[in-house]
Amino acid sequence: MNAPRSVGDVTPSTARFDQPLRLASGVTLQQFDLVYETYGQLNAERSNAILVCHALSGTHHVAGTYAGDSRSAGWWDNMVGPGKPVDTDRFFVVGVNNLGGCNGSTGPSSIDPATGHPYGSKFPFVTVEDWVHAQARLADHLQIPRFAAVMGGSLGAMQALQWTLTYPDRLGHAIVIAAAPSLSAQNIGFNEVARQAITTDPAFHGGDYYTQGVIPERGLRLARMLGHITYLSDDAMMEKFGRDLLTDQPRFSLDVEFEIESYLRHQGDKFTTRFDANTYLIMTKALDYFDPASQAGGNLSAALAGARARFLVLSFTTDWRFSPARSREIVKALLDNSLAVSYAEIESTQGHDAFLMENEDYFAVVRAYLARVADEVGA
Amino acid sequence: MNAPRSVGDVTPSTARFDQPLRLASGVTLQQFDLVYETYGQLNAERSNAILVCHALSGTHHVAGTYAGDSRSAGWWDNMVGPGKPVDTDRFFVVGVNNLGGCNGSTGPSSIDPATGHPYGSKFPFVTVEDWVHAQARLADHLQIPRFAAVMGGSLGAMQALQWTLTYPDRLGHAIVIAAAPSLSAQNIGFNEVARQAITTDPAFHGGDYYTQGVIPERGLRLARMLGHITYLSDDAMMEKFGRDLLTDQPRFSLDVEFEIESYLRHQGDKFTTRFDANTYLIMTKALDYFDPASQAGGNLSAALAGARARFLVLSFTTDWRFSPARSREIVKALLDNSLAVSYAEIESTQGHDAFLMENEDYFAVVRAYLARVADEVGA
Repeated sequence: MNAPRSVGDVTPSTARFDQPLRLASGVTLQQFDLVYETYGQLNAERSNAILVCHALSGTHHVAGTYAGDSRSAGWWDNMVGPGKPVDTDRFFVVGVNNLGGCNGSTGPSSIDPATGHPYGSKFPFVTVEDWVHAQARLADHLQIPRFAAVMGGSLGAMQALQWTLTYPDRLGHAIVIAAAPSLSAQNIGFNEVARQAITTDPAFHGGDYYTQGVIPERGLRLARMLGHITYLSDDAMMEKFGRDLLTDQPRFSLDVEFEIESYLRHQGDKFTTRFDANTYLIMTKALDYFDPASQAGGNLSAALAGARARFLVLSFTTDWRFSPARSREIVKALLDNSLAVSYAEIESTQGHDAFLMENEDYFAVVRAYLARVADEVGA
Repeated sequence: MNAPRSVGDVTPSTARFDQPLRLASGVTLQQFDLVYETYGQLNAERSNAILVCHALSGTHHVAGTYAGDSRSAGWWDNMVGPGKPVDTDRFFVVGVNNLGGCNGSTGPSSIDPATGHPYGSKFPFVTVEDWVHAQARLADHLQIPRFAAVMGGSLGAMQALQWTLTYPDRLGHAIVIAAAPSLSAQNIGFNEVARQAITTDPAFHGGDYYTQGVIPERGLRLARMLGHITYLSDDAMMEKFGRDLLTDQPRFSLDVEFEIESYLRHQGDKFTTRFDANTYLIMTKALDYFDPASQAGGNLSAALAGARARFLVLSFTTDWRFSPARSREIVKALLDNSLAVSYAEIESTQGHDAFLMENEDYFAVVRAYLARVADEVGA
């Protein structure tokens, strides 16, 4: 094993799909683009591909950097690269921006060819299953008949799980990290507050703000601030910020006072410069709708009966957004179907965000699991 | 013991205080009003009074009803009344709306006598200690030299705790329910999102919306929706709402879809008709600032050294806003000072809201504790 390093400079590609895609909502997209990146080499047998699915605010830019921009490392650059747990010396890794996104794939901010204007409110809501269908089109485009593995964290993990149901023969392994088999009422509640923040922002204009020269940045900022609270554990926040004030004494004003306030405001502000509010709505709705058990009368074990992949399921001890108990629901349902499952509950103080962070135990498990997969597929 | 019943119809009173009150912020209020209610009879020794302190959105209307309005029961009507755990056949109970409130006590929506206009942004931020000082003025007004007990839940419990430090000789017992000795970074984070929702609402006008003919209802609504998520446990929400849809199928739209969304929107809408946004800011800031340990270099035990009351501390198993662990911090600090403490961790699925709910174990503990207090004071 070589010392881990970066995949280096990368360039995204765009694939155009002209075959209509009928979505779960009943709406048909006549055509769509998916922007993607790949790292490593597809082997002659085309058997060593890994699809990495992104979470709520992620993108196709999983690893490496963009030339001339040293701060442009991909969102999972610590995980994916030569000698890293997802070893691009052995695997051909594909990152893709999902349909409805705002980073190059067709989404609400894209031009609707039917009107010549941004889709805006006319862009359909999509589901995890829709994304999996679109990703399968990309696999066809890349001539990948079957992925060695499909993997992701959080909403990305839900896509990995959905792959095992929608295309059971097109993947060998699913790596399901920091996931839940469905959102709880509390999860939906947080998403709903975020959505209401956006949709009640006067600048939202019913979703058609692109042509108004404004963006609902107040709402998007609030949504992101709230999101960040749920990504971190209470303990991690106390460790990182405590009750520290920015000044010696309370200011007794609405100015920023506590470190945590400063952090959240900064995260919120930053997000409005890089993310689209309509995409945020679409992503949170996809989360809310995800519930494979609902296809089987609420019985998750029955819902997963068609899966044939082998599974690595990982959770983090302080993740209260999708707690280890939710991951264990998935594990139990898989075991009920006599499927091969490895499960680890990783000690971490980092809450839900742990899936993005370097952690010795976590990375060791992924590394070991994928080394075996690489051997299997002759990578 | 008689069967519990309501205190019946009640009428609030207003006390005006003309002695200046210097606040923790350094600002002095030249005069202020406090609106209050009382239930039961003050005994000849004036020894049987209990002060009930309200939480974030509470009021002086603790028990009973307003004549002609059958839906006007006080917020703790299940707890306070003849034959109830806080037995008004034995105790004289005082409920008071805090300074900065919006229910009759002087607050940002009150007319500033210096200008003839609502205080608005000029109303000072207040602390739990300020409230305790104002409440002591009310005790003087009512000629109550010493309370048999001061009690409250959540932010109300923080006031009860503060009473034992600010006026250690003016209360016999403190009943501290669902409290924390200070807010965590996560708690402050949620408050900050709520505040940012209000202050970034274009209708906020820097706090001076009263004269603009608008209220920042979008922001206040979001703040309340978010609050409600943190008041309930994840389990309680799942029990109450689950993932139930209002319709048979997902709507794939921004219309309300899940029961939990409907509940939160309704709670948010209702709140904007009864609560003032500036008061919400003041209450959340008072929560953030509360931190008696900070007066003793972060040592809570040292901070509580001056207390002489006896304590009943109660927490609820599924309260994640102020978890039992936070109550145990208070208990430990009290025990470090060899103070008399009774502590119970009450089994409940209701989360933080449990302190407002009827619960056999909870009510039995309060009832038994206060029966002993009543005997003590000859009530």
